[in-house]
Amino acid sequence: MELKNFIRIQEDFPKKGISFKDVSPLLADAEAFKEAIRQMKEIGEQWKPDVVIGPEARGFVFGAPLAQAMGVGFVMARKTGKLPGDTNKVAYSLEYGSDALEVPSFAIKKGTRVLICDDLLATGGTLSALEKLLRSLGAEVVGIITVIELTDLGGRKNLTAPFETLVTYPH
Amino acid sequence: MELKNFIRIQEDFPKKGISFKDVSPLLADAEAFKEAIRQMKEIGEQWKPDVVIGPEARGFVFGAPLAQAMGVGFVMARKTGKLPGDTNKVAYSLEYGSDALEVPSFAIKKGTRVLICDDLLATGGTLSALEKLLRSLGAEVVGIITVIELTDLGGRKNLTAPFETLVTYPH
Repeated sequence: MELKNFIRIQEDFPKKGISFKDVSPLLADAEAFKEAIRQMKEIGEQWKPDVVIGPEARGFVFGAPLAQAMGVGFVMARKTGKLPGDTNKVAYSLEYGSDALEVPSFAIKKGTRVLICDDLLATGGTLSALEKLLRSLGAEVVGIITVIELTDLGGRKNLTAPFETLVTYPH
Repeated sequence: MELKNFIRIQEDFPKKGISFKDVSPLLADAEAFKEAIRQMKEIGEQWKPDVVIGPEARGFVFGAPLAQAMGVGFVMARKTGKLPGDTNKVAYSLEYGSDALEVPSFAIKKGTRVLICDDLLATGGTLSALEKLLRSLGAEVVGIITVIELTDLGGRKNLTAPFETLVTYPH
């Protein structure tokens, strides 16, 4: 099964010059979605994670079923102000302005083996920030996996942990 | 397994008077998360959905693995401006101001049997709006399922489709 057949390209979204990769058709097809999770699981197992973490919001869509498939827990990395209780936070730069992610403190301990999962690697700003946050908490980021990598954007070089992806586009 | 043991109560979050139900501990525990999905699947199967739909963002965390477990596709109901291409949109009132959800038009057709999944039913504003949107597109909302229902808030009476939940709290 060719997963790319289930990814729709929308030019100039969300703004001019961006070639948006829409995973909605992949998710809506039970077999394609299942195959994507199967491939991610096969890759992720080599890293023996204790937990899968996914950044809000599309990281939830792939990370949660991946965690279930691998038999480990799932942790939400949320936008600021969404998580109650003790959290750890990291801010990071975007093209315009900045953003931040928070993780629940109880879920990430020293030595926790964490697999980061998201839908797409572009410049790597979000995933690199999340990786740094997790390492600062003493976690071991054993691997990072996405469905899609935009190779021309060079995000891979901003990541420290082993990185794998299911499909690639230049940009 | 008592799922409530994995739901943490945070008083006065996100503001004074709100008793927030945090599902982070449930997600982080592989067995508890698996049991929640197992129970949702058991309930959902009676409705024979073609697809599971979850509202951003916590609806993704439960809806996506539920869809996988049931062998059907998953549809994201997103906040405005996040989905490319043709979408259908519904606005709804919040305590202060309003919000809106969009669904990809290709995924919801006349007669599609849709199961709505979210983490929590409070007043039902979001789920009721999503239900109305889906019906306006000709879909059949065969059921609505949440992990948690806050019974005193009366959200259930704002829903038309059969509603089931895994655990309840007064508020």
